[in-house]
Amino acid sequence: MKISTLQENLKTGVYIVSHIAGKNVNLPILSNVLIKASKDGINLITTDLEMGIISKIRGKVETEGKYTVNAKVLSDYVSLLPNQKINLEKKDNILTVCSENYKTSIKGQEAEDYPLIPKIDKNIYFKLNIEEFKKALSQVIFSVSISDTRIELTGVLFSFSKNGLTLASTDSFRLSEKKVKVTTNIETEDEIKVVIPSKTLQEVIRILSTIREGEINRDENEIVFYISENQVLFTVKDTELISKLIDGQYPDYTQIIPLENKTVAIINKKEFVRAIKASSIFSKSGVNDVNLDFPLGKNKIIISSTSSLTGENITELDAKVDGDDNGVVVNYKYLLDGLNNIEGDSVRMEIVNNNTPCILKSEKDDNYLYLIMPIKQ
Amino acid sequence: MKISTLQENLKTGVYIVSHIAGKNVNLPILSNVLIKASKDGINLITTDLEMGIISKIRGKVETEGKYTVNAKVLSDYVSLLPNQKINLEKKDNILTVCSENYKTSIKGQEAEDYPLIPKIDKNIYFKLNIEEFKKALSQVIFSVSISDTRIELTGVLFSFSKNGLTLASTDSFRLSEKKVKVTTNIETEDEIKVVIPSKTLQEVIRILSTIREGEINRDENEIVFYISENQVLFTVKDTELISKLIDGQYPDYTQIIPLENKTVAIINKKEFVRAIKASSIFSKSGVNDVNLDFPLGKNKIIISSTSSLTGENITELDAKVDGDDNGVVVNYKYLLDGLNNIEGDSVRMEIVNNNTPCILKSEKDDNYLYLIMPIKQ
Repeated sequence: MKISTLQENLKTGVYIVSHIAGKNVNLPILSNVLIKASKDGINLITTDLEMGIISKIRGKVETEGKYTVNAKVLSDYVSLLPNQKINLEKKDNILTVCSENYKTSIKGQEAEDYPLIPKIDKNIYFKLNIEEFKKALSQVIFSVSISDTRIELTGVLFSFSKNGLTLASTDSFRLSEKKVKVTTNIETEDEIKVVIPSKTLQEVIRILSTIREGEINRDENEIVFYISENQVLFTVKDTELISKLIDGQYPDYTQIIPLENKTVAIINKKEFVRAIKASSIFSKSGVNDVNLDFPLGKNKIIISSTSSLTGENITELDAKVDGDDNGVVVNYKYLLDGLNNIEGDSVRMEIVNNNTPCILKSEKDDNYLYLIMPIKQ
Repeated sequence: MKISTLQENLKTGVYIVSHIAGKNVNLPILSNVLIKASKDGINLITTDLEMGIISKIRGKVETEGKYTVNAKVLSDYVSLLPNQKINLEKKDNILTVCSENYKTSIKGQEAEDYPLIPKIDKNIYFKLNIEEFKKALSQVIFSVSISDTRIELTGVLFSFSKNGLTLASTDSFRLSEKKVKVTTNIETEDEIKVVIPSKTLQEVIRILSTIREGEINRDENEIVFYISENQVLFTVKDTELISKLIDGQYPDYTQIIPLENKTVAIINKKEFVRAIKASSIFSKSGVNDVNLDFPLGKNKIIISSTSSLTGENITELDAKVDGDDNGVVVNYKYLLDGLNNIEGDSVRMEIVNNNTPCILKSEKDDNYLYLIMPIKQ
């Protein structure tokens, strides 16, 4: 194998694939990146056996071949080099990496020992705008469960249909739901539901973040999903990520979303965040409770907390409040998470009573909903 | 006690003093800040028994008195409030903190239980420009010893005289020395040598960093040191920090600085840092060795390393080299630390031989010297 490329191309490609190359005691070669040079060009490949990433980079193939070297060593080294032409060549059991003043030999392992990346049928596709998808994903991924007791809750539910995509996640304490537009080649009204591991989605977010806006022209501003029974393939620009799906029945979360409410408040988001943080200092450790009160006809909300250790706090905020006299106690961390993902200057809060989930919505974006289970007193 | 002040004043004052208020199992009150309101104004006070900080804040004293509350709770809470007038009042065993919409009660402890901050004789003073002192301190503090086996090496040696101040530190692997100008009231040529704990100096750096440049007028751009036998007092603006000194004989470090050299190289600093980092990837783990070679008459230096695990690297850099054919092996971390503190685009490196310390200097600043012990082969 003998190839040449620009430092910038190699650096970006190695950066994209090397993150999932980790230490695996049983299979040390998984800490390597597979460099594959063929008539089709230069591909950099990694896998952690749950997912695989393939990044095609621009460059010249002088002699075809393939080889693997430690991903971190290659990534650390290449990122330091000046942006010049780099020659890479396999010689016996080393890869030589040479540019103008820098000469390096990296020890490696034969490509034959590297696991194969599975293929996927490309029968069904869904296309999404990259920026919209990135934002939607960030609005739901934070509320996946971190506990393995219900494995399906550790992923995000993707419900695809020809009418759109609904993303949802819940850790059973709070729930996020977001709807986005898609284009697709399926024609029936049927929904396709898959649960994608949050680790895979975090990798997708990371890859999308490395693609600078300037690099995307109008034809390339889409991420494409291919769905099969057990796997999902994301393709964006010159990068492909293929991942296993989570095998498990996702609960019908729509059942817990209240259909009606008794009290609706429109609150300045910045002031609300500040008041919640102030109250959080005096909430009970481990419980993280803050009280929200909506006194009848006063157009204000009262945020309060009391701790036997530190003291107590009461904050009054002006707000537009309609409906019944009401109150609810919630975990301030979940409340702040939700507010952090609500767009615009104000937030709409809907309360039924102190035993029923309350809902946060944006006044600007009707496609996003955040729900918090109350702390029962 | 009943006082009022602006949020901004209280926030800055509490921020300055609260950092050293930590958890002390034997003396829980040390996690508190002492608020003292008297005819002299409002003082915020903390101590960790090794040092004490006093910050005077602007405000109105309605009723004199003193009280202590948890420093972290007060700091977290006050930093969230809007910049409005805040009223603080002691009532029984709580401190009420009220501004327009925010009402808080913080539980506290009586001031009588708080340790006294010692006083110091103000007979001998030294004044330094704040910016010069901050920079000088940052250039030496990183090379203090982190091991307690020789307690005197965990501090920075301050050698004061009427001609100036010399700061020095060494962990016995490398050494930093910096000279700065002072004004003083002592008249003899005698040197006053004290060793100040690095923890104290880090606190001084932190305090100096909170003082924004805009806040300092021409008369206030000095930090003043008062030295006594066992203690040092720093005063800057409205803040005082008093600290114990380290009791121990600092070694005569000047003995290990070579008086002559055989080879001098002037090297582009940015390129040198890049080449060292590239070589560091292939240096022996734990040893961190990189080889520096200065071949005779070639006007270049060769940076190289070899690891049995990862591979090897050779980088050639153009440089202005005078003197003998020479070479030295050093720890790349120490070399990078030094380069990080050398001012200007190029660095002057002085080598005797591969068994003698080598020296880094700035071409711009004759008052700074950095020395590295070689790794003997």
